[in-house]
Amino acid sequence: MKQFHLSIVGFGTVGQGLAELLVSKQDMLRVNYDFEVVLAGVATAHSGFIYREEGLDIPLLLELAAHRRPLQEHPEVKHWDTALEGIEAIGQWGDVLAEVTGTNLRDAEPGISHIRTALSRGMHVITANKGPGALAAAELSALAQKHGAQLRMESTVMAGTPVLSTIREGMAGVHVTAIRGILNGTTNYILSAMAAGRSYSEVLTEAQAQGYAEADPTADVEGYDAVAKTLILASLVFGQSLRLEQVVRQGITTITQEQMQKAIDSGKRIKLIASLTQKEGTLEAQVEPVELPLSDPLARVDGVMNAITISSDSLAEVTVIGPGAGRLVTGQGLLADLIAIAQSK
Amino acid sequence: MKQFHLSIVGFGTVGQGLAELLVSKQDMLRVNYDFEVVLAGVATAHSGFIYREEGLDIPLLLELAAHRRPLQEHPEVKHWDTALEGIEAIGQWGDVLAEVTGTNLRDAEPGISHIRTALSRGMHVITANKGPGALAAAELSALAQKHGAQLRMESTVMAGTPVLSTIREGMAGVHVTAIRGILNGTTNYILSAMAAGRSYSEVLTEAQAQGYAEADPTADVEGYDAVAKTLILASLVFGQSLRLEQVVRQGITTITQEQMQKAIDSGKRIKLIASLTQKEGTLEAQVEPVELPLSDPLARVDGVMNAITISSDSLAEVTVIGPGAGRLVTGQGLLADLIAIAQSK
Repeated sequence: MKQFHLSIVGFGTVGQGLAELLVSKQDMLRVNYDFEVVLAGVATAHSGFIYREEGLDIPLLLELAAHRRPLQEHPEVKHWDTALEGIEAIGQWGDVLAEVTGTNLRDAEPGISHIRTALSRGMHVITANKGPGALAAAELSALAQKHGAQLRMESTVMAGTPVLSTIREGMAGVHVTAIRGILNGTTNYILSAMAAGRSYSEVLTEAQAQGYAEADPTADVEGYDAVAKTLILASLVFGQSLRLEQVVRQGITTITQEQMQKAIDSGKRIKLIASLTQKEGTLEAQVEPVELPLSDPLARVDGVMNAITISSDSLAEVTVIGPGAGRLVTGQGLLADLIAIAQSK
Repeated sequence: MKQFHLSIVGFGTVGQGLAELLVSKQDMLRVNYDFEVVLAGVATAHSGFIYREEGLDIPLLLELAAHRRPLQEHPEVKHWDTALEGIEAIGQWGDVLAEVTGTNLRDAEPGISHIRTALSRGMHVITANKGPGALAAAELSALAQKHGAQLRMESTVMAGTPVLSTIREGMAGVHVTAIRGILNGTTNYILSAMAAGRSYSEVLTEAQAQGYAEADPTADVEGYDAVAKTLILASLVFGQSLRLEQVVRQGITTITQEQMQKAIDSGKRIKLIASLTQKEGTLEAQVEPVELPLSDPLARVDGVMNAITISSDSLAEVTVIGPGAGRLVTGQGLLADLIAIAQSK
């Protein structure tokens, strides 16, 4: 049976979700896919990088993380002060790196350095971090190819709901002409509640209390999170590297209850729609509120759900609706990427 | 560059659609996937099997088919009287068989014999024929594995809209607990029109005139087509071989305009729903009209569109909506299967 040594860099919600799945799914991976995963490395900004060739004790790691204790309390581990030093050191033993540090759309650090370092050493990389894919998908894909490594990022768009794999593999051979999607759960939750008659500020406060929105909601409500996903789709689906400022962007903060009610009265719904449209050789990219008729499959996607509609030459319109965030949902996307890598070797 | 010799058995709408795609997509296959397809064999019940190692002239074949002339008028071909004799003879040269003869739910012939013969000779098989998958998916999968061949049937469920690949590859690692779907376009077209106030018989006549329904609509309106797809999903997703009579089946012929109106008045829609539900170790299978609330993602799927909702442990509910029939739509599913085979070798 094949064995993969995995290191997880970033051990917050997503990293812990993946670790949990490695425990709950280990028998399934052996039986259905004929491989096993040894979680050998874990890194956080506070604890640095720990590594144990024979495998780390996942329940112990989750326990340490839950109590905010240093991960190097795990017995018998090698230790480096930073993730980067650890990746450089283990490159020769590590098979796969899961890069799940936080998204940064200015320079994609520290994720992009982690990914570059791993790929340069021939490690496969799976990631849920939107920064590197949004700012440098083409560069990183080329780097992966050069070193015979794979780079997969299913979880960056609609988390574990299969989108990138659906387009690239399920719809292999199709010529995609346009994509439209509800790619941010926080804003869709807010807009859905506003459609039920509530005010923006009231719903935002509630979403923050329920953990659907951050204390600083800018990245969501101003559309930056959806823009990041749009850039990833532009690169991976259309092969075009757009810059952040090439995406026309408008958030949901200025939508009034009156506008919402007017849309509903005319049989429509307002949704924050990310779109990519190929027009005469150029790719138009937008993230903005759009009034959709109820016949549009995206119009009825409510709450934190995400959805994407793919227009193409031979399949007309295909729509995928599913969850776009969550501990296990995002971990599942990483797991599917890991299985794809294992299957292809 | 890799080269695949393909034979298409059955040269009706679907077979011709695939042949058209082989022409329009040949550059794309070379550039994006680094392989080319030589259409070397074609068979029909009337013309028997023709084969030309160097490749057949696809425009000429389409021309002959359009004028209902014998395919053996194609110059320089080997000829056998039946598809089966042809497959037996070319087994040593042929790489992939596309089995696209008509669906037969009694004994799956002649498709199942074509597929068994091809797999036994180590040929990969792609198929849009629902009979063999519905009646013998487990047997055929085992046969494929024994001979190191692949058997793929994306187009049997929702045609080229990616469903089987989405579940098996995009959602790899997920434990599917239930599936519900609108898997028949003809009945969904009729029910959608009835929801707009029209009568069953009037809409059926119209659907027949537009080519959405057969002259004998039994397979669609009594639910047998959806049952076949349900059996395929039972086998490929749940690993359980059900018999036709184990699927509870009710068609749409007895639905009255009154029932339809009553459902609409209570904010619901009546849809023909195929479902598979795992309950305490047994798999319950049903195809029957169900009243769905408008909050259900399947409720608003209208016209000839198909849709499927997959419930699972780590992704909650994922829904895929797309076309479920058509010349190029079905051909595209076969093409995606062909690409998957090429990528995996």
